[in-house]
Amino acid sequence: MKFDILKKDEGSRARAGSIHTDHGIIETPIFMPVGTIGTVKGIHQKELEDVINADIILGNTYHLYLRPGIDIINKAGGLHKFISWDRPILTDSGGYQVYSLSNNRKIKEEGVMFSSHIDGSKHFFSPEKAIDIQKNIGADIIMAFDECTPYPCEYNYAKRSMHMTHRWLDRCMVHMKKTEGLYGYEQCLAPIVQGSVYKDLRKQSAEYIASKDADINAIGGLSVGEPHEDLYAMTEIVTDILPEDKPRYLMGVGTPANLLESIALGIDMFDCVLPTRNARHGLIYTNEGVINIKNSKWAEDFSPLDPELGIETSTRFTKAYVRHLFQVKELLGPQITSLHNLSFFLKLVREARTRIIDGTFVEWKNQMVVKLQTRL
Amino acid sequence: MKFDILKKDEGSRARAGSIHTDHGIIETPIFMPVGTIGTVKGIHQKELEDVINADIILGNTYHLYLRPGIDIINKAGGLHKFISWDRPILTDSGGYQVYSLSNNRKIKEEGVMFSSHIDGSKHFFSPEKAIDIQKNIGADIIMAFDECTPYPCEYNYAKRSMHMTHRWLDRCMVHMKKTEGLYGYEQCLAPIVQGSVYKDLRKQSAEYIASKDADINAIGGLSVGEPHEDLYAMTEIVTDILPEDKPRYLMGVGTPANLLESIALGIDMFDCVLPTRNARHGLIYTNEGVINIKNSKWAEDFSPLDPELGIETSTRFTKAYVRHLFQVKELLGPQITSLHNLSFFLKLVREARTRIIDGTFVEWKNQMVVKLQTRL
Ligand SMILES: [Zn+2]
Ligand SMILES: [Zn+2]
Repeated sequence: MKFDILKKDEGSRARAGSIHTDHGIIETPIFMPVGTIGTVKGIHQKELEDVINADIILGNTYHLYLRPGIDIINKAGGLHKFISWDRPILTDSGGYQVYSLSNNRKIKEEGVMFSSHIDGSKHFFSPEKAIDIQKNIGADIIMAFDECTPYPCEYNYAKRSMHMTHRWLDRCMVHMKKTEGLYGYEQCLAPIVQGSVYKDLRKQSAEYIASKDADINAIGGLSVGEPHEDLYAMTEIVTDILPEDKPRYLMGVGTPANLLESIALGIDMFDCVLPTRNARHGLIYTNEGVINIKNSKWAEDFSPLDPELGIETSTRFTKAYVRHLFQVKELLGPQITSLHNLSFFLKLVREARTRIIDGTFVEWKNQMVVKLQTRL
Repeated sequence: MKFDILKKDEGSRARAGSIHTDHGIIETPIFMPVGTIGTVKGIHQKELEDVINADIILGNTYHLYLRPGIDIINKAGGLHKFISWDRPILTDSGGYQVYSLSNNRKIKEEGVMFSSHIDGSKHFFSPEKAIDIQKNIGADIIMAFDECTPYPCEYNYAKRSMHMTHRWLDRCMVHMKKTEGLYGYEQCLAPIVQGSVYKDLRKQSAEYIASKDADINAIGGLSVGEPHEDLYAMTEIVTDILPEDKPRYLMGVGTPANLLESIALGIDMFDCVLPTRNARHGLIYTNEGVINIKNSKWAEDFSPLDPELGIETSTRFTKAYVRHLFQVKELLGPQITSLHNLSFFLKLVREARTRIIDGTFVEWKNQMVVKLQTRL
């Protein structure tokens, strides 16, 4: 996996780059739509390719491991073939869902015992198992198995957990080298910085992760409920330490404003369920601010949903129509708003990239973050 | 509204024709996807145009009247504009849902009092009101207000009801002429033959309807639970009487085999929720038979969903993948199967048309009805 930096912004730490994978090039900064369980909710793969134009999507190891199961994905020839998606895929390690969804989880040095949230069946994830599963899924980018601490998190717990995450990383790296990839293309391992909202821990963790010289470095344990100031402060401390010549991935972030501010701090990759989850609740993002399409104020508004975005559905359908679809709980409502929001997020990071390249990023970013947080 | 018959089949009563409307040509025989409440469930309008290639869709007056309400549709400039669909639309009269969905309905000569299934609010539909609503919706084809008798139905009730439907038709026709269309294009009224499964009543009703010389004639009150023999027997009696030079619409029918058999009896138009409702339950139609994609036998079947249909999703995605989507209850499952089934129904009637034109209809139909009823 190769990362080229095309341009560094002079007014911020933002960079425009390209990650070269065996499934194609990822132009950064990039937002990765979340394809939880082998599908980005409500979106056809063709729409991901042709309308949203996603360079890479994310899959959730925990969900895929439980259903359809690794055996079926393996027999299909990997997740790319199973879901018919020929561009890069990143998988998380499964840890996050084990902590947030499963029952009776017990975290020990060896790994985590947990019960499936679906049928209560007992399972065990370890650093080695998380690598094996992700290799079988066939992710281009494999995430290290970590503990994502909740917010708030007591200092001593955060510190102990961070060191365990570091030891787990070492086990992941050893195991990663032990076995060949199954599908003939390169799979790389991305370690994760933890340390909750404690500056000294974040610094220490970033230094540890930086020392591993990985192809991609990730920042985890943020966007879990902490104030935005903490998110940005921790991100800044960490990006200051992580290698400049490798992509930096801020996990689980965030709002459009979060994306732009984090790009300014040197982040290259994002993922978040926000655009699709909010879409299903009728919240859509536009350049002028956020619209709650279920609001009665749109009932007789026959202007396009968003004429600026430039995708067919958002130009073609009116606010009144999309509001009606939500009123009557028709599938087409979330289909349209999900397509809209993901297209918006991708267009936003693409615009950021263009602005970085032409040297107008900071000024544009400062105007946009105000507009993006307006409620229409 | 003009109907051209291009070819009459020599081995059956099937015909290939074209209905000319101000929103474009409908090539018959045709299947009309049901766009209940301003949307064909799970299907983008662009997919209706480009993938399914529907010449006309159906809207439900009862649902649209309740939500978004006629006022909003009117302000939008009619249903075509409201939902952004520029091809023909047919609306039912609202009667069927009043009888099947609403509460506390009271059918009298003047009309029907009923309570909304949504909020219990009281409403009144009469022949005149049904015309006014459909004119406001802006349907190209307006259905007469009738009573659709249930199955089974006692002879005397069916007879009384049929005569009331005839009197209601006369009121519809008078009222239809009283007011101009609102949107500048032609709207025509289609009367409906009733008479339950009684041959003498069906004959009498067909003669009454035929005497009105309407642009399109419909057959109602079938496909409500009666045996297939009754469906075909009643259809045959009625098509024998209805004018040959006008399109015949068999309401609420049916399975792919029902379509082909009814085309052979001289039917030109169909609508049914079957392809979309069954799609949402994981039943898909193929040239080789019906597939229940939720069945475990498909769990590791990595062959295309249906390579023959020729649409992208059905070629691209495997049975195993679509089964997985249903297992995990993801939206994309019904989206794919709905697109598949509607494309299948449209392709089937188009193939029937081609077969009628080239003189191979009956032979093909007899082979197909066997295959279409196979369970795979
Ligand atoms: Zn450590
Ligand atoms: Zn009569």
